[in-house]
This record gives sequence, C-alpha cells and structure tokens, in this order.
Amino acid sequence: MNTFGKYIRLTTFGESHGPAMGGILDGMPSRVQIDRQRVQEELDRRAPGRQPNTSARREPDKVEILSGITDEGLTLGSPIGFIIRNCDAHSADYAGYQEKFRPNHADYTYYKKYGVHDFRGGGRASARETVNWVVGGAICRQWLETFGIKVSAGLIETNNIADTASKGDSTGAIVSGLIEGLPVGVGEPVFDKLSSRLAAAMMSINAVKAFEYGDGAKAAEMLGSQSLDVSFIDAATGKVSFNANHSGGIQGGISNGMPVNFKVYFKPTPTLMQQVETIDAAGDRVVIDPKGRHDPCVAVRGVAVVEAMALLAVADLMRIQWHDNV
Amino acid sequence: MNTFGKYIRLTTFGESHGPAMGGILDGMPSRVQIDRQRVQEELDRRAPGRQPNTSARREPDKVEILSGITDEGLTLGSPIGFIIRNCDAHSADYAGYQEKFRPNHADYTYYKKYGVHDFRGGGRASARETVNWVVGGAICRQWLETFGIKVSAGLIETNNIADTASKGDSTGAIVSGLIEGLPVGVGEPVFDKLSSRLAAAMMSINAVKAFEYGDGAKAAEMLGSQSLDVSFIDAATGKVSFNANHSGGIQGGISNGMPVNFKVYFKPTPTLMQQVETIDAAGDRVVIDPKGRHDPCVAVRGVAVVEAMALLAVADLMRIQWHDNV
Amino acid sequence: MNTFGKYIRLTTFGESHGPAMGGILDGMPSRVQIDRQRVQEELDRRAPGRQPNTSARREPDKVEILSGITDEGLTLGSPIGFIIRNCDAHSADYAGYQEKFRPNHADYTYYKKYGVHDFRGGGRASARETVNWVVGGAICRQWLETFGIKVSAGLIETNNIADTASKGDSTGAIVSGLIEGLPVGVGEPVFDKLSSRLAAAMMSINAVKAFEYGDGAKAAEMLGSQSLDVSFIDAATGKVSFNANHSGGIQGGISNGMPVNFKVYFKPTPTLMQQVETIDAAGDRVVIDPKGRHDPCVAVRGVAVVEAMALLAVADLMRIQWHDNV
Amino acid sequence: MNTFGKYIRLTTFGESHGPAMGGILDGMPSRVQIDRQRVQEELDRRAPGRQPNTSARREPDKVEILSGITDEGLTLGSPIGFIIRNCDAHSADYAGYQEKFRPNHADYTYYKKYGVHDFRGGGRASARETVNWVVGGAICRQWLETFGIKVSAGLIETNNIADTASKGDSTGAIVSGLIEGLPVGVGEPVFDKLSSRLAAAMMSINAVKAFEYGDGAKAAEMLGSQSLDVSFIDAATGKVSFNANHSGGIQGGISNGMPVNFKVYFKPTPTLMQQVETIDAAGDRVVIDPKGRHDPCVAVRGVAVVEAMALLAVADLMRIQWHDNV
Repeated sequence: MNTFGKYIRLTTFGESHGPAMGGILDGMPSRVQIDRQRVQEELDRRAPGRQPNTSARREPDKVEILSGITDEGLTLGSPIGFIIRNCDAHSADYAGYQEKFRPNHADYTYYKKYGVHDFRGGGRASARETVNWVVGGAICRQWLETFGIKVSAGLIETNNIADTASKGDSTGAIVSGLIEGLPVGVGEPVFDKLSSRLAAAMMSINAVKAFEYGDGAKAAEMLGSQSLDVSFIDAATGKVSFNANHSGGIQGGISNGMPVNFKVYFKPTPTLMQQVETIDAAGDRVVIDPKGRHDPCVAVRGVAVVEAMALLAVADLMRIQWHDNV
Repeated sequence: MNTFGKYIRLTTFGESHGPAMGGILDGMPSRVQIDRQRVQEELDRRAPGRQPNTSARREPDKVEILSGITDEGLTLGSPIGFIIRNCDAHSADYAGYQEKFRPNHADYTYYKKYGVHDFRGGGRASARETVNWVVGGAICRQWLETFGIKVSAGLIETNNIADTASKGDSTGAIVSGLIEGLPVGVGEPVFDKLSSRLAAAMMSINAVKAFEYGDGAKAAEMLGSQSLDVSFIDAATGKVSFNANHSGGIQGGISNGMPVNFKVYFKPTPTLMQQVETIDAAGDRVVIDPKGRHDPCVAVRGVAVVEAMALLAVADLMRIQWHDNV
Repeated sequence: MNTFGKYIRLTTFGESHGPAMGGILDGMPSRVQIDRQRVQEELDRRAPGRQPNTSARREPDKVEILSGITDEGLTLGSPIGFIIRNCDAHSADYAGYQEKFRPNHADYTYYKKYGVHDFRGGGRASARETVNWVVGGAICRQWLETFGIKVSAGLIETNNIADTASKGDSTGAIVSGLIEGLPVGVGEPVFDKLSSRLAAAMMSINAVKAFEYGDGAKAAEMLGSQSLDVSFIDAATGKVSFNANHSGGIQGGISNGMPVNFKVYFKPTPTLMQQVETIDAAGDRVVIDPKGRHDPCVAVRGVAVVEAMALLAVADLMRIQWHDNV
Repeated sequence: MNTFGKYIRLTTFGESHGPAMGGILDGMPSRVQIDRQRVQEELDRRAPGRQPNTSARREPDKVEILSGITDEGLTLGSPIGFIIRNCDAHSADYAGYQEKFRPNHADYTYYKKYGVHDFRGGGRASARETVNWVVGGAICRQWLETFGIKVSAGLIETNNIADTASKGDSTGAIVSGLIEGLPVGVGEPVFDKLSSRLAAAMMSINAVKAFEYGDGAKAAEMLGSQSLDVSFIDAATGKVSFNANHSGGIQGGISNGMPVNFKVYFKPTPTLMQQVETIDAAGDRVVIDPKGRHDPCVAVRGVAVVEAMALLAVADLMRIQWHDNV
C-alpha cells in the first residue's frame, strides 16, 4: 500500500511531525554509479523556503543513505534504505488543530478510516511524504541517464501566485511533464500501460485533480482525420518517425520513440491564511485560525514531485523492458 | 502485468482473433449471490451492433463461467474462471494489414516490443479485451450492491457521431462516471489512493487520453477560497456532510461519503473508413484500405467499459476496507 | 492467492467436479517456440489410470490453449490462457460425502473458512488442480531448455504400494528432484531465495509434509568441518567448481552452478478403501464408506507435479535474472 | 524481492557493515497497542554475546521506531519505519577476506550475480539482516496476542555445542516451532497455504536446509491407516476437535484449530576457527585465516529468528482472514 512500482519499488514511511521520513528503493540493478551529492541537490530543489511563493518552513532535509550503495557510489543490487530527519516540525502550530477537520484536507477521512489520526501537520497525509519520492526519483534519474532518458517538468501559472498569497488566498496551477529519449517498447500492455502508470503516479500526488497526455482532454473533441500520427522512415536517421505526436509518445500503452508529454492539474492549497469554519471529531462546530506555514500554490514545489514520480514510473517499466530488449 | 487489482484481482487473456477471450477473478468473498443472467446482460450491453453508431460485428459473446460459483449462484471464495469464445472474427478482413503499422494503433509498438505481433484485429491490443473487464465488473457490481454502492456512466457527445460516421471519419467523446453510496474510508493512502486507482483503471482503456475527478482540470484555475468543501452535521441524518463537492468525494485519496464523480476523455477511433498512408515492417511505404468493421466513436461502447473498470477498482479497495471497518 | 510466481506467474482456477480447470501463464517472453504436443504429453504423464498404482479414473485431460501462442507455436509475449475440461467427474460417487468431513482432508477447514464448500471430490482442494500446474510447467520447461536447464524427479518408494493397495490402505513416499544446467546467480537474496521459492512451491502440493535440499535434515547433525564445499578452478573447463555439493547447488539462496537436488515427502493418501468415522457439518457422528477412485500413493503421480512446480519456480527466477546477467 | 508478506509486509535493507539495518512494516491495522520496550527486549534476546555459545560481538542493537506508532503506543495504520544502527562492526576483521570466496558462504554467488559484493561480514547476505525480522516479528506478536495466538520456538541440540566450539569447529542443530491459539481458517488455499508460507519463511533463514510440519518426513513412511486425524465434538467445549494431530494443525493449507507444530533444520555455521582453502575473485588459490567472531551453532540465536519469521507469516495470513471471519 505504501509501495510504488513492481520491479523497481519504492516503499516509504513517515508522519509529518514524527522523528523522520524514509524509504527503501528495491530492485535497482547493481553497478549503477550514484552521485550522493546530486540526490541531495534534488532534495534541496524541492525544499520549502528556497523559492519565491513557498512556505517559510526551513528544514535542512538532509538525506542519509543507509545501504545499497558502496562508499565509491556503486549500487550493490541490494535495497537502498534512506531517512530524512524531521528537524523543523513546529508541532505547537498545530495544537489548535487537534481533532478539527480542516476543509479539503484528509483529516476527516483518515480519522474515520483508522479511528485515530496524527493531526499534527496532517501526519501521514502531509505532502512532506514527497521528500521520500524525490530521493527515490533522484536515484532512478541517474540510472535512466545511462540510457539517455531525460525527465523534466515545468510550472504553468494560471493565476498570479504572489497576488493571491498577499490576500491570504491560494491558487491552483498546472505542471507539464516531458520524457525524452525513451526507447520504443517501454510500458506493459493492458493494465500496466505507460500511460496508466504515469496517471497513477501523478494522481498519487496530493492536490492533483486531473491528468492527461498527448492531445489530452482536447482529443475528445477531435475527429479521427485530425489526429493521425503517420509513420515514415526518417531519411536522416533511417529510423521510424511520425509526422505528428498526437499520441504523446505512447501507442497501445507502449512508448513509440517520440517524446512523452503530459499535464498534471493541481487544485489550490486547501489551507488558507483565513479563518474557516468546520467541525471537530465530536461533531461540534469550530473555527480554524491557521497558524502553520503553507505554500499559496503547491504546484510550485510540485514540479520536483512530478519529476520524481515520472522518474519512478519510467524506471520501473524500464527495469523489465531493458532486459527483454537486449 | 495482465492483472488488475490487489485484493480482488482480475487476470485476463485473449487475442482478438484467437479462439477465446477469458479471465480469472480472484479474491471475491464467499457466499455472494451472483445472478449469471445479469452478467450476460452486461456483456450484451457492451456488444457491438446493439446500439446505433457501433460496428456491425455481431458476436454472441456468451460468457461461460467455469468455476467459483455454485449451481445455485453462490460464490465459493475460490477463483472465478470464465471464457468468451471469439465466434465472429473475420480474419480475412485483416489479410491486407499483415505487417502494416496502422496509424495511432499499437501495431508498431507491439511489433518492436515483442518482435512478433498478431496483426489480425490488433491481437492482444484490441478493445475486444474489454469483454473480460465487463464480465469481471459485472460480478463485482453484484457484490458492491450488497453495500448499496452503485456505479454508473454516461456518454457526453462532443461532435455528432452519425454525421461523422457518414463521412468515413471518427470522433472523440467524453464519458462521465459516478459512484454513489460509497462509505467513508475507501482508498489506501499514498500510492493506492481511490483517485489514483480510478485513474489507472481508466487510463487502461484503449483510446483514453485524460482523466479528472471532482473539480478536475478546472481546479488548476481556481482560488482556494472558491473550492472549500466545508463539513457540517446534517440535521436530518445526524451525519457529517459537506456544503459542496469540489473534492469529488475523495480527500487524501480516501472516500468521504459524498458521490465520487469523474470524467474520462476518449480520442477518436484511429481506424478511418478512408485510405491512409503508413509503413510496413520492412520500412516500405504502403497504403491501408480499411476493410474491418469499426465504431466511429469508441466512447459509445466505452460507457460499459468505464463502468466495468470503476467497479473493479472500487471492489478491490472495498475488499480490504470492508474488513477493517467492521 | 491463486497465483504462483512474480515475473512468470501462473494463476489458476477450477473445482474438481466443475465444468473445467484452467489457468493463465503470464510473463513468458515472446518468440519462444512451444510444441503444443509436448505440453499434452506432460499432461498425459500425470493422468490417472496410465500408471500402475494410480486411480482408475480415466480422463482425456485435453488441454486447449486459447491465447498467447501463434499457430506456428511462437509465444507472443501475451498471457497464455488454457482450459482442461472435467469430463469424467463421477459426482454421484460423492453423494454420500455431502457435508461430511473426510479425515485429513480439507473439507472441515474449507467449510469453516468459507461457510460453503463444494464437497464433490474436494472442490477446489482437490489434487485435480495440479493439471493446471503441469500445463504451466510444461510450457516453462520448453523455455528453460533453451538455456540448457533440465528439471527431473523420481519416486523413492518407502513401503510396497501394491501391497498396501491390496489391503485397502495407502502409503506415503518420497519424491526426489534435480535441477541441472542452472547458471550461477539464479535466486533473489533474503526473501525470494531459490531455496525458499522451491520450498513454497513444493509445500503447495497437497499431501507434502516436508522439504529439504542439499544435505537437508541431516545437516543439523553434521559438524562444519564435515560439510565444506571448497571451490576451485576446474582444470578441464577453466571454471569455478566445488569439491562437494553439501549446499545442494544453492548458497545464500542463489544458485552456484552445481546441480540443485532436493527431496519432497508425501504423506499417505488420506482416503482409504475402508470405513472411517467422522462428523458432519451438523456435528453429528457419521461413517464414511468410500466410493471414489483414489490412488493408494499420491506420490506416484506427484512426480510430474514436483517437476511442474520446480519448473515454475525456476522459470520465475530465471525471468528476472536472465536479463540482468546479459 | 526484499519484502515478506502480502497484507502485512516487511520490507528490509542493510549490509552487515554499513551504517544501519532497517525496515518498514506495512499493513498493520490501526489502534493496536504496541509496547516499544517489549520490541527492544525481543531484539536483546537475539543479540550475540547474551547467551552461552554465541559470538562475542556485543552490539547495543537499539531499535529506533520512526513512524506509524503514536507516543502513546497506538498504531496509526500507517507504515512502521525503523532502523538499528550498526555500531560494533569490526570491518578490519574482514580486510583479509576481500575478494576471497569463503566456503559455504554467499560470497561467490553474490559476486557472480551482481558483479560487485560487500565482502565485509557478508554484506547483505549476513545473518545480521535478521535483526530486522525480529523487530517486525515482535510488533506482529503484540497484535497476534490480542487474538490469543502464541508463537514459540526451542532448540534441539544434536551435537554438544560447547565441545564443538572448543575444537574450532561448528555444528548444526534443530529448532522446533509451535503456534498455539490459531483460529480455524487461517491460510489461503492452493499457493498461499499456511504450510507453504511457513516453509518459505523458514527457508529464508540463512543456514536452514529442511522444513517439516506435523508428521513431517516420517509421514512418507507411514500408512494411511496410521495417520488419521478423526474429528469429533469435544464434550467439554462443544467444539470440533481431533483425536490426533498428524496434520500438524493444517489441512488443505488451512489451520484446523489444533496446534501448528514444525521443525527447522540448521546446517553448521560455515565459518570455522580453522584455516580453509578457497579461491579468490581472480581465480587464485588462497587460504582464509578466520578472524571474525562467529557462533559455533547459528541455531542458538536462530530460535528468536524462527519465532520472528513464524510471527510474520501468521500475521500476514491473519490480516486477510481476520476480516473475512468476522
């Protein structure tokens, strides 16, 4: 349940205000060169307080890799265990939240599902969990680079974030993703399609409400004659290419050698810097006076998370295909 | 790889023009009353040639249940095996397709991935596979009904399908889905969120390019203050309710008791009743003169498939939650 | 739950007296040449009534392969679905068994676990299920042969079976197994050791009470100085070899290039040709007068089943290792 | 691959001489009371240097639980992450082992499988990994106790260990296991039988060469008439009982309410306090002069490990059955 992937699997743990976050990345091949410093840099990129429009919470977020990689940076083929200590958790900020269900948060559903919930910072439901994904993704990235595969993402602003933040409000936004250099044949037909795995990966991200690839939602309004990807032999390379990329690089769930492009839609941060009404676990009406530090637009830091999840999804499918194609 | 679900698992097989399609539904609890006739009726609903704007291919599509259900219709707790014979496969229609890569189809990617491909009707990549899903979903539906859970879907036409068909073209369309009566607490946090499982389920459907739930893609343009689902105690029922359903019934990946609503975007059928250029396995330029029978809009029959996949996803997550909530 | 394996996975279904047994073998690589006739021959070898000391039940046991293999016998990389009809099920023989718990059978435990049980021939608990394993194993064998891997098994008689049978009694026996030609490196450390997977495979077989490999149970009485496998470079081949094979070809759960040898201990057939006392579902004391046809020693036909399960276990682990070693 | 279990899953990491061992126990229900001190005590029981006939290596082996349990000791339903630092790793002891294949160890097979190996203390192949299992098992034990389930194990000495140790030799031994209080119905038929899962669990333990339950290997020499477990209604309790327990508490792979008894056979510790010949990675003949601290009989500390693995196997199967039986 807390595992993503079948062949390269990331299993994670951690509550937002517990002692540490962490995970185990299992299935990575041996003899892959991993630069620990680059893993840390990816974590820094996600960290709050490093970018405009992110929360002021400043955490060192130092990843400690505990196994699976030699001192020389070579993977052993054994599971890569890691932890990130939670150093800057201001639990006191959440004292007033105790047993209060914050609107659009997971407090109510967790409380009902488990009969107990760590209300401090959302506990397991917190986006803090994504530090684990970034570490896992950063390791996968270095393996995928050996095949020339590149994963990137970018923010598409829909409302002015700074404006919004100054009013104590929050806003949604879009993150676009791009996978380049993927060989033909990645993705398992039927239920483990590359498109299906990417969708599952992106919808795992807190606050994501929609996913599309290639022509996306627009495809529903198109005619067949308007959306053909006609294949031909590229005279320059002698290889199969396509005159367009309506398919977004995926046909029948399998990569076709074209770039894979997709979009991920984030809802606004549910925590506002405004008083909001709600109920508590006893069913009494209460008012929440927000005191925590929150991003006005989660998609800003979501860019690194979209990359991480795409890296994990692609690495997982490459792990099995890689062999079969040799 | 050909399995959907973790607790209630559907594993399927079958090529479009092979002897039969089939599957195994494993994990269904014992002593569930299953009406075989209703399973057959759901299959009939999906069948081609029964609705306007679907292909003329007429297959009996009779499901034969081979295990797991007593003569009296009671599940045994053992796996439910079933097959559907392929009776009306006009393989001759595909003679001219041999080794030709149909545009926007999976021919090229399958051929490259496996080094061999059943070109007749798309082989394993054919939407014929969805008969298996409909059978699996129909059995799950009868179990979910015992909890008062109802899954339905409907077509949202974007272009006039009849018009399109008359011109030898095809069109995309949207299918909306609705899950009613779901108790609070269904969905596993982090990587098996209800939203993530639904997305994976829908993106498994051939021709689907986008998935959204609740406010969906629009959420990316909204402000936080515009999208609050404020909880209150419903005076009539004494239960927790929400003033709106921006969340689409899911918070933190877990159902919150409100209806779950989602949309699935289908691209146009890639096979046109027009000549199209492409290349073949030898890399030679060839022209395809379509002869098969194809739906001008796959979303028409996709309605039954969207329901089936939603049923499978919900049943799977209910299987574990059901116990924990008792 | 009804699936064996992680990379090459056999999922099965079928009750002893239902319409058919069957399964899906998923994960087999594409372009493997499969001789359907040889699959049938392996099934014939397991069949009752073909050997001395097996039950008189004569079933055609014809396997029908429904997908995943071309007419020319080439695997497509898609799941291989198959069924075997239950033609010769004398349900009438079991009329008197209805709701009676046969001693040492699974009737009582199934009935308590599921609240419903197919008492005819043991339903899902019947050894008839092993026809599915033999089909799966037979396909795996043909793939493993391309690597020079050979799996065989033989019967070690402990009591005289014919004697026993003539007295209406039954007897246990031992089946020895041998895996030859396995390359170094097969088996995943820690929880998916080759030894652990073989043990799980063998203990899945009805009537098996013990498993051992290499020195086996005797190792518990040995001194370290008596059980060393000292490695050296074989002058003839230039390759690493060992002066002995106490390890049974497995070190740290991974094959070391030596033959893998193991033993499987079968208990006596629990059904005797004698009256036995028991209770029924109502808790009343009843007497069972056996009428079915039963083998006096299940290990006789168990030889083919031991081979099948060893083939499935080895193929599964080869599937991932094969790639990594290239 | 480094995960045990399907519903309650333990995923582990750690090399013997790396910074830490650790794991994630996922799937534990919420609101289970866990006494952290008792978890530590189970770890102490396994620790070396606390018992006669174990190695002198003294490690604090302090488990740090990082998530999933509240300060008050209540499980949250989220994954339980934990680490145990490797404090007393005398890597220098292993300097002379570098690239030398110790007989009956996993050095050769790991080196060949991965192309790289952490020779210090056996790396991932070390029995040090079992600290993770003991932590996971100790948490499961506290949950199982709420059902009245008790798991215990004991040493059966075959040779005099002290004698052996004084000669620089090592010896094998037997560990017997007992599961009491298990309700009827635990174990999934066919491939996840309670017996099969126990066997897989035990064969995961380094040095184990054989597993048996109930009558075990002896069953192969018995007649059917000698091994009947006849059921009757116990007059005292009004419940179903059996006149004997040849079945070892398991019928058709499912618990029948009788005690589950089994035996696990350990080979002698492969490291002797004697010079042994072997080859190194270059294929050269070398002599190993052992310097590490090793137990003359691994089964002594194996008792705690057998209990841990039995606890994990039983908890996993109880997790699904528990619900179904309510």
